[in-house]
Amino acid sequence: MGDVKEVYLDYQSSKPVDPRVIDGMLPYFHERFGNASALHHVGDVATEALDESRRAIADYINADHDEIVFTSGATEANNLALIGYAMKSKRKGNHIIISEVEHISIRNIAKYLERQGFEISRVPVDKYGRVNLRKLERRIRDDTILISVQFANNEIGTIQPVAEIGTLAEERGIAFHSDAVAAEGLVSFDVKRDKIHLMSLSSNDLYGPRGLGVLYMKKRYRVNPILIGGGQERGLRSGTEDIASIIGMKLAIDIMKKEMSTEVKRFEGYRKKLIDTVLAEIPDSYLNGHPTERLASNAHFRFDGVEGEALLLSFKDKGISVSTGSACTSKTLEPSHTLIATGLIHEEAHGSLQLTPGRFNEDEDIDRVLEVLPDVLARIRKMSPIYNPKTR
Amino acid sequence: MGDVKEVYLDYQSSKPVDPRVIDGMLPYFHERFGNASALHHVGDVATEALDESRRAIADYINADHDEIVFTSGATEANNLALIGYAMKSKRKGNHIIISEVEHISIRNIAKYLERQGFEISRVPVDKYGRVNLRKLERRIRDDTILISVQFANNEIGTIQPVAEIGTLAEERGIAFHSDAVAAEGLVSFDVKRDKIHLMSLSSNDLYGPRGLGVLYMKKRYRVNPILIGGGQERGLRSGTEDIASIIGMKLAIDIMKKEMSTEVKRFEGYRKKLIDTVLAEIPDSYLNGHPTERLASNAHFRFDGVEGEALLLSFKDKGISVSTGSACTSKTLEPSHTLIATGLIHEEAHGSLQLTPGRFNEDEDIDRVLEVLPDVLARIRKMSPIYNPKTR
Repeated sequence: MGDVKEVYLDYQSSKPVDPRVIDGMLPYFHERFGNASALHHVGDVATEALDESRRAIADYINADHDEIVFTSGATEANNLALIGYAMKSKRKGNHIIISEVEHISIRNIAKYLERQGFEISRVPVDKYGRVNLRKLERRIRDDTILISVQFANNEIGTIQPVAEIGTLAEERGIAFHSDAVAAEGLVSFDVKRDKIHLMSLSSNDLYGPRGLGVLYMKKRYRVNPILIGGGQERGLRSGTEDIASIIGMKLAIDIMKKEMSTEVKRFEGYRKKLIDTVLAEIPDSYLNGHPTERLASNAHFRFDGVEGEALLLSFKDKGISVSTGSACTSKTLEPSHTLIATGLIHEEAHGSLQLTPGRFNEDEDIDRVLEVLPDVLARIRKMSPIYNPKTR
Repeated sequence: MGDVKEVYLDYQSSKPVDPRVIDGMLPYFHERFGNASALHHVGDVATEALDESRRAIADYINADHDEIVFTSGATEANNLALIGYAMKSKRKGNHIIISEVEHISIRNIAKYLERQGFEISRVPVDKYGRVNLRKLERRIRDDTILISVQFANNEIGTIQPVAEIGTLAEERGIAFHSDAVAAEGLVSFDVKRDKIHLMSLSSNDLYGPRGLGVLYMKKRYRVNPILIGGGQERGLRSGTEDIASIIGMKLAIDIMKKEMSTEVKRFEGYRKKLIDTVLAEIPDSYLNGHPTERLASNAHFRFDGVEGEALLLSFKDKGISVSTGSACTSKTLEPSHTLIATGLIHEEAHGSLQLTPGRFNEDEDIDRVLEVLPDVLARIRKMSPIYNPKTR
């Protein structure tokens, strides 16, 4: 790369751990490493750390500490929420509702549950990617046991009407699960306010370590375990607890509590600059997702006559990491199911660019992308057999 | 604790991460943190790290890199091996054999599989805790699909005849799984030599980070996934890979390859001193487990007229961390199923002490335990209504 600074604008896909979190984790790798199931001093230290973290996480989302289950990540939390709840509740009914724009882990879990005999309804979204409440309500049946709708979309950043969905679910006696990963650090969480009964969180999305997640489980909303073993986490999630990471998530939350409001304002500035400049200066460019109900760190565009992959590789050559959609599926190069669900055709969906700044970006990173983008686009469009300028 | 150095002799329950491993992991938390599913530079770094670690682990056990699946720990590896293999193979048969001295995670998985309609045979062990091969062979049926026997016992340290079991399994066309966690860093692994088809490993038991494990899966031995999601690890284990920990496990293995033979000799010295001194100087004391076929770091005793819990708490008061059995169940205070399986009665099993030294112990730690033990035992026995000295 020579002397050019690498620019990373793909925070929605993966985040570096905050150095302050790493510092705080260090003692738990070596000096304070015990097994929380052991009865001696070293084990006590681990038990205290576990308890301390559980309380901090509960406080962050306005839950109780005994409603927090540690998992190996958001994927496992989603598995425990959907498969665990479905299996536990199958005598009550076998119908589950998800949205058409869920993260791939929820989508694939839903397919798995269909093979196990559950019926899944997928509720459509509007052109901004928002779940339509009336359409959701119309899909509710007497045998509906669970509604799973993300807090915000991990691609286009659209924030879902979770409080309204929670109210609806509670009125109808249905459990409401929300995969809140994409919204972490960007919106305030309050499971009581929003009437969320099950919620998945990831540590990494708060700038904590990877390989750790949490399932919030409201009292009386029970799930069957997915991983069987030594009976840790009250039998719901077996396996020796990863204390260093668990403390890491707590420290990440401590930082978030203090800094989120300032940080979100900074991201809103980046977002405004990205969106305003791109739409003003790039011909035939459009914003994907909702104009206002969107995550502060999300700018998502589509460009006529451009292949997302070509865009991504051109940026890569210039030392800029961006995304064309969900990182979890981007290697497949399939068009984004989210964009298709908002009504785009395949060609339109393929010409998308996702820019998600984060904690360690500086103003100059945003400037650099905006400086590079017009040339990159012009070059790609020049070689494109399908680009017909509409504007100009 | 004042000025007295804390002594930790419970390495079988949990290990501190080697400081050299922590140092090597650090860059992967922040500077080199990417998502291996992303298509840009940062993602490439993650993909390379993943590949590098996979090859090092494969090499360590004499497997191929595409036979290594990363999991969130040994518990998940055991779930994937037993539940995953059973579900995948249920058309071939529904009978599974485990030993009576398996780790609680295998025992509980077996109970789960019974509830799913599988039949489980539990093969007994001899008085040293070793699986009896003839008894194992007699339990094999036409519908037996899987044999799961640990590499070594996590409580009494008895090494199982895995090569013989592997040969037997292969002759009869049955898959052989071994939970190798307790033996990590203490014996040499060679899945080809030992004819092991599925093997569970934990990163922490090699002085690597917690929250990471591996399932070795020989080619053509397929399993159904347990966690559904983005399709990482060839669809077998979804969830964004924890690159820092994955590199940590690789570094732990690099150290192990270089230092294991020296380290094992040192542990054998500790073990000899512990066993010789205790049996010579403590009246009515006995060694649990096999006299020679045992892990180098394991010394496991029972003492007439002593409650394990009292022993453990007395040691705790003196700043010494020890165990009375499996850490994963020690909080339940039930007698160890392993000791019961070796033919001990409940009272005998309750009077046990497990000492498992490890990498960061020094000679003086062993001396300190041996200095404290006689007094501690004498005091407990004095108050014991059940102790009748046999010797003396």
